[in-house]
Amino acid sequence: MLKPKFAYESEVTMTEMVLPNDTNTLNNLMGGRLLHWMDICAAISAQKHSNRIVVTASVDNVSFSEPIKLGNIVTMKAKVTRAFNSSMEVYIEVWAEDIPAGRRMSTNRAFYTFVAVDQNGRPIEVPELKAETDEEKDLYASALRRRQLRLVLAGRMNPQDATELKALFEME
Amino acid sequence: MLKPKFAYESEVTMTEMVLPNDTNTLNNLMGGRLLHWMDICAAISAQKHSNRIVVTASVDNVSFSEPIKLGNIVTMKAKVTRAFNSSMEVYIEVWAEDIPAGRRMSTNRAFYTFVAVDQNGRPIEVPELKAETDEEKDLYASALRRRQLRLVLAGRMNPQDATELKALFEME
Amino acid sequence: MLKPKFAYESEVTMTEMVLPNDTNTLNNLMGGRLLHWMDICAAISAQKHSNRIVVTASVDNVSFSEPIKLGNIVTMKAKVTRAFNSSMEVYIEVWAEDIPAGRRMSTNRAFYTFVAVDQNGRPIEVPELKAETDEEKDLYASALRRRQLRLVLAGRMNPQDATELKALFEME
Amino acid sequence: MLKPKFAYESEVTMTEMVLPNDTNTLNNLMGGRLLHWMDICAAISAQKHSNRIVVTASVDNVSFSEPIKLGNIVTMKAKVTRAFNSSMEVYIEVWAEDIPAGRRMSTNRAFYTFVAVDQNGRPIEVPELKAETDEEKDLYASALRRRQLRLVLAGRMNPQDATELKALFEME
Amino acid sequence: MLKPKFAYESEVTMTEMVLPNDTNTLNNLMGGRLLHWMDICAAISAQKHSNRIVVTASVDNVSFSEPIKLGNIVTMKAKVTRAFNSSMEVYIEVWAEDIPAGRRMSTNRAFYTFVAVDQNGRPIEVPELKAETDEEKDLYASALRRRQLRLVLAGRMNPQDATELKALFEME
Amino acid sequence: MLKPKFAYESEVTMTEMVLPNDTNTLNNLMGGRLLHWMDICAAISAQKHSNRIVVTASVDNVSFSEPIKLGNIVTMKAKVTRAFNSSMEVYIEVWAEDIPAGRRMSTNRAFYTFVAVDQNGRPIEVPELKAETDEEKDLYASALRRRQLRLVLAGRMNPQDATELKALFEME
Repeated sequence: MLKPKFAYESEVTMTEMVLPNDTNTLNNLMGGRLLHWMDICAAISAQKHSNRIVVTASVDNVSFSEPIKLGNIVTMKAKVTRAFNSSMEVYIEVWAEDIPAGRRMSTNRAFYTFVAVDQNGRPIEVPELKAETDEEKDLYASALRRRQLRLVLAGRMNPQDATELKALFEME
Repeated sequence: MLKPKFAYESEVTMTEMVLPNDTNTLNNLMGGRLLHWMDICAAISAQKHSNRIVVTASVDNVSFSEPIKLGNIVTMKAKVTRAFNSSMEVYIEVWAEDIPAGRRMSTNRAFYTFVAVDQNGRPIEVPELKAETDEEKDLYASALRRRQLRLVLAGRMNPQDATELKALFEME
Repeated sequence: MLKPKFAYESEVTMTEMVLPNDTNTLNNLMGGRLLHWMDICAAISAQKHSNRIVVTASVDNVSFSEPIKLGNIVTMKAKVTRAFNSSMEVYIEVWAEDIPAGRRMSTNRAFYTFVAVDQNGRPIEVPELKAETDEEKDLYASALRRRQLRLVLAGRMNPQDATELKALFEME
Repeated sequence: MLKPKFAYESEVTMTEMVLPNDTNTLNNLMGGRLLHWMDICAAISAQKHSNRIVVTASVDNVSFSEPIKLGNIVTMKAKVTRAFNSSMEVYIEVWAEDIPAGRRMSTNRAFYTFVAVDQNGRPIEVPELKAETDEEKDLYASALRRRQLRLVLAGRMNPQDATELKALFEME
Repeated sequence: MLKPKFAYESEVTMTEMVLPNDTNTLNNLMGGRLLHWMDICAAISAQKHSNRIVVTASVDNVSFSEPIKLGNIVTMKAKVTRAFNSSMEVYIEVWAEDIPAGRRMSTNRAFYTFVAVDQNGRPIEVPELKAETDEEKDLYASALRRRQLRLVLAGRMNPQDATELKALFEME
Repeated sequence: MLKPKFAYESEVTMTEMVLPNDTNTLNNLMGGRLLHWMDICAAISAQKHSNRIVVTASVDNVSFSEPIKLGNIVTMKAKVTRAFNSSMEVYIEVWAEDIPAGRRMSTNRAFYTFVAVDQNGRPIEVPELKAETDEEKDLYASALRRRQLRLVLAGRMNPQDATELKALFEME
C-alpha cells in the first residue's frame, strides 16, 4: 500500500513562447500545438504524483475560445486531481499573455488522464491523492463523474449505469 | 446561400512516420504529438469543405488504448460530418502500422470542430454537408448530440435542455 | 521465392501543411524540405511493398517549376513501379493546393529507389511487382531505362552498354 | 552586363551533426534529410555568386552508397560551376566522419541548379562564372552536358538535339 | 520616470522534458540546447519586468558540472536582479529531475542580460528594480561587480577602473 | 603520452541560414539559438582535437552587439586553443551575412570548454595543442588567464591565487 500524496506535490508550471512554426496563416497558435504542450505538462505532473513513467490514456473535451498570438507567452499549470489504481486524472489550466501589451487571459482548461507503467509498459499502482483546498476537493469529487463520461464515450460503460453522470440530466 | 458539398469532398489522408523526438522513454508515440498531427489533418479537411482559413474550436474526448511504437507508420483519415453556420465537425480515424511486422491496428478516433474565418479572423458561413453513405448519415445524425455535449461541457447549455443527449441517459 | 505483389498495395498518400520554417525569404517552400518529405513518403511505399526496413539508394533528377506558398497543402502520392532483387523504384507525384483560393496544381514528380535490408543493414530480396493498369505497365517498362541512366551516372555502367537508354538518342 | 566572378567566391562549407531525429530505425541518416541540408548549402553558394535571393530549380540524380550513422559529422562543400543567364549550377560534395573512430569517407556528390530572382520572384540575370583550376574548368565544360540531360528529362529538349549528351552514347 | 517594480513580479518558471534530439551520443542533454532554453526563460522574465520586447545582450560564464539525462525534467527559474537604464540582468537557476528515480539536483546558474527595445529595435528605458528579500538584495548589490566584469571582458572598460571587481583581487 | 596536435587540425566551419523559428518578434536571431549552434560547432572542433566524445564544461561570457536578421547566413569558425589534461578550450568566431545586400559583419566571439570522455562518461586524457601562428600563440598564452577566471567564477579558486588574472587589475 503506497503512502497517499498531496495534490500540491504534483504541481507543474510550464512556459512556452509562441514561435512562427506554432502558428497558422493568421499568426495564431494552432490548437494541436497547444494540445501537445498541455500533454507534456500534464504528463510531468502525473510523473510527479506516481514517480513512474506515465502514458497518456485520454484527454477530455478541450475548447479553444480565444486566439493566442505569435510572440505570446503561454503558461500552463497542471495538478493531479485524483488517482484510480494505476490511473491519474490531471487538471491543467492555460493562460496566454501579451506582455508588451500588458494583457493576460485565461484561455483553456482540460483534464488529461495518464496510466503509470513499469519498464515493460504494464500498469502499476499509484498513490492515492489527498485533496486539501476547496478547489482540490471539488476537483476530487467531480473526478468520478468525468470518469464515467469517459467510460461511456469509450463504449466501456452503459449510460444507464453512469449514476453520477445521469444525475446531471435528470429533473426533479 | 452556399451550395452544399458532399462529405467525400473533404476527405484527407495524412501519413506520418514516428521519429525519435515523437516518443517517450518507452519509445512510444506521445499522446500530445498525435493530437497535434490529428489537428492538422482535421483542419485541412475543414479547409477543403469551407475553402476558408479555419481555426480549431474544440476537440472531443480522445482515448489512447494502444501504444504506437518508434518507426511505426501512422495513417489518419479525416472527413467533415456536419456543418453548423460557420462551424464544422470533423471525424478522424487513426491507424498505426508496423510494416516489417505486418501489423496494422486501429488506434484512435476523434471529433474536432473548426470555425471558418475571414482574413480578419471573423466567423464566416460555410456550405451545408450532404451525407451519402450510411456511415456518413449516422455521423451526420449523431453530430447534434455531440454538439450538445460540447455546449454542456463548455457551460454554454443547461444539461436539462440537451434533449438529444438526455435521451441517452433516460430509461423507458 | 516471394509472392509477387500488386502496385496498388504499395500506394501511400501523405499530406503536409507548409509552415513558416519550411519557407525561404519569399515565403516559398524550400526545395530541400520537399525532397525530405518525398523521401519519407516514397520510403513508406517501398516498406509496404517489401515489408522490410528500407534505405534510400538514389533519387533521380527532380525539377521545381512552380513555387509552393506558405500555408499551402502539399499532397504526395507514391507507388512502387518495379522491383529488382533487393531494390525498388518508387514513383511519386506532388500537388500543391491553396485551398481558400481554390487552386490546385501538379508541381513535381520523381523516382526514388530504395534497398530493402535486414536488421543488420544487409540487402535482402523483395517480391516482384505486378503492374495492372496502363500507367503501371508504362512505368514498369520504362523502369529499365531509368535504371540504366542511374548506373551510367553513378559510373557503374558504360554508356555504350546502356542499350535501353541509347535507343533514345539514336536516329533511324 | 555584370562583372564575372570566380568560382572560389561562391565556396560554402556547412557542417551538421547527425541527431536522433535525422535517422531511421537502423540509426542511419535518412536520405531526405541529407538532400535537405545539401539544398541549403548549395543555395547559399548560389546566393554568394549572384548576391540574390535564389530558388531551387532542380537537383540531379543523387545516389546514397554508404550509410551515415547517428553522431557522425557531415561536412558539405558547395561551389558554383557555371551560370546560364539567371540560373546557376552548383556542385556539392559530402563527407561523413566518425571522429572518435577516426573514419572519414566521401559519401555523396550532386549538382543542384538555382534561379536568381528579384523581390517579386522574377528571374534576374547573374554574373558569368570564371573557372580557374583544372577541376573548375572540367566542371564548367561538362555543365552543358548536364544541362541538356536536365532539359531532356524535363521534356523540354528533344534527345536528338542534345548534341553534347548524345556524344556519350555514340561509338567511334 | 517609470514606477519601480518588485523582483518577484518578473519570476518565471519554465519546464522542459529532455527529448532524444536534445541529447548527444551519451544520451546527455547538450549544453547548447540548455543555453537556448535558459535564454528563452530569462528573456520572458526581462519582458515581464519591462513590458517590452527584449533582446539578449550577453550571457555570463555558465558551467556544466552534472550530466542531465534523456527523459529528465529540467526546471528553470528566472528573476530580474537589477535594471540599468534600458538593460536588465536576469538570474536563472536550473534543476534536473529524474522523477521515477526520485533524484533532483541543482545543475546550473547563470546571469543573462537583456536590453528592452521599441518596435524599431531602439533601446528604451525600463523601471528600476526593488529588491526585497536578502537573496534579492545580495543579487542586486553584486550586479554592479558582474556588470564591470562584462564591460572589461567586452573591452569597454579598463580593468584599472573596475573598482568593484578589483577589490576581489586585492590583498589587505 | 599522446602525440601533440596542431591547432589547424581542429578547425571547423559551420554555416546556418536564419529561419523563422530562430527569430524573435523583431525578426532577429534569438541569442539562445546562436549559443546552441556555437556549442555544436565548438564541440565538433574539440572532438577533432581529441578523437573522443566530448561534453560541454563551460561557456565564457558571450555578448551580442549586432542584430542578426531572418534570412541572414551565419558562419562560425572554431579552433582549439589549448588542452589541459582532459579538457580543451575552443575559440569560436561568428559572422553574419546579408548576401543580397552585400553586408557581412563580425558579430560574436566566445570561448567554450569541453571535457573528453570515454564511453562511460569518464574524463580521459587528450593530446596537447601545438600553436603555430601568432594568433594561435596569443590564444594559447591567454588561455591560462581565462581558465583562472572560470575557476574563480565557479568558486573553485580563490581570487588571491589567480596570479595570471590578478595581474590584469594591478597597478605598477
